Amino acid sequence: MSQKITIVEQILNANDQLALENRRRLDENSVFAINVMASPGAGKTSLILRTIEALVGRLRLGVVEGDTAPVTIDADKVSAQGVPAVQINTGGNCHLDAVMFQAALPQLDLSRLDLLIVENVGNLICPASFQLGTHCNVLIASVPEGDDKPYKYPNIYRGVEALIINKIDLLPYVPFDMDYFRRGVEMLNPGLSTFPLSCRTGEGLDAWTDWLEAQAGRREA
Amino acid sequence: MSQKITIVEQILNANDQLALENRRRLDENSVFAINVMASPGAGKTSLILRTIEALVGRLRLGVVEGDTAPVTIDADKVSAQGVPAVQINTGGNCHLDAVMFQAALPQLDLSRLDLLIVENVGNLICPASFQLGTHCNVLIASVPEGDDKPYKYPNIYRGVEALIINKIDLLPYVPFDMDYFRRGVEMLNPGLSTFPLSCRTGEGLDAWTDWLEAQAGRREA
Repeated sequence: MSQKITIVEQILNANDQLALENRRRLDENSVFAINVMASPGAGKTSLILRTIEALVGRLRLGVVEGDTAPVTIDADKVSAQGVPAVQINTGGNCHLDAVMFQAALPQLDLSRLDLLIVENVGNLICPASFQLGTHCNVLIASVPEGDDKPYKYPNIYRGVEALIINKIDLLPYVPFDMDYFRRGVEMLNPGLSTFPLSCRTGEGLDAWTDWLEAQAGRREA
Repeated sequence: MSQKITIVEQILNANDQLALENRRRLDENSVFAINVMASPGAGKTSLILRTIEALVGRLRLGVVEGDTAPVTIDADKVSAQGVPAVQINTGGNCHLDAVMFQAALPQLDLSRLDLLIVENVGNLICPASFQLGTHCNVLIASVPEGDDKPYKYPNIYRGVEALIINKIDLLPYVPFDMDYFRRGVEMLNPGLSTFPLSCRTGEGLDAWTDWLEAQAGRREA
């Protein structure tokens, strides 16, 4: 058993080293990058499309789409908004890692970007273990998923710098105790920047996009 | 690279062998077992609780709860209904496998069960690769997750014998094209037994529990 653990540690270390290289490359080009993680269907692509709408003209944007299947549904939506998009097909794999992200970077002209948004594979577990080299990990929770997710998937809540609570327009129709949810988050990640919003109605989006623009600007300065 | 592939195959084969042993053990005790898979928050625990309500008195039930974190939220809910429940804490791992299931089986008195329900870890990718030895893989899709999930997570749709479409009470409030969803499913798994229902309102549950009881009965006979 101890031999197996050693192998796992080596893989993670190799990943973290590559993540540092990716970070350096982003910094050399003054690109601020975020890694968006969530369950399938929590609204990663919707958030990215809404963020593009809000920030286009204010920041030069690019998107890396991670998908487990060879479909370009999400990348097509991003491209349709006139934003450069690169797709990583993980070939059935359950997360992005620094190797895949490194392979995607040369396909973007980083010198012409301010903000790079990475959409990870839809999964609340595995992506938490693999840093990509982005500056900020963002988690999207979704109201209809239920209020117990921080308690049941704690690792991913621990490792993020921002939390979106999406689909708040569904709060009247599903049982979701916001206080219970927030207590769970606070226990795992005290003071975490949190943005309740609805990608569908647009409610709450400004707070998120203003925060994100400020983060990207701080990086540039 | 070829060496890495070989290792993966050996692991899968070992898992499948153990799954066969698990199946034999279930069959010796005339226990019909299902493996319930879904994204986080699609309603696995809700479905199990509703299924218990419907079938208690008709079948003798047991539940194995797979959780990635050491919390007993779900197992407690099942126990509160008077059904024997065993929890597997995967220690951060993203799926159940045949080894974990084998370790859980001795903690249940199989001679006193007709139907064993296994709740897998909330994940649409990894659980699809690990057979447990159950007789039937059940996938829960959830309306607010969106209608494109069969296209984006095809592997798990290919490997199941039944599909629940949960949270149909939310259909008026979210964009979900049922025809597009069903076309995706039909492409991957033609003729799949599919049960649109709402664990919240109870709509559609009878068709599911009647089907499940018939499957378990057929096994017994």
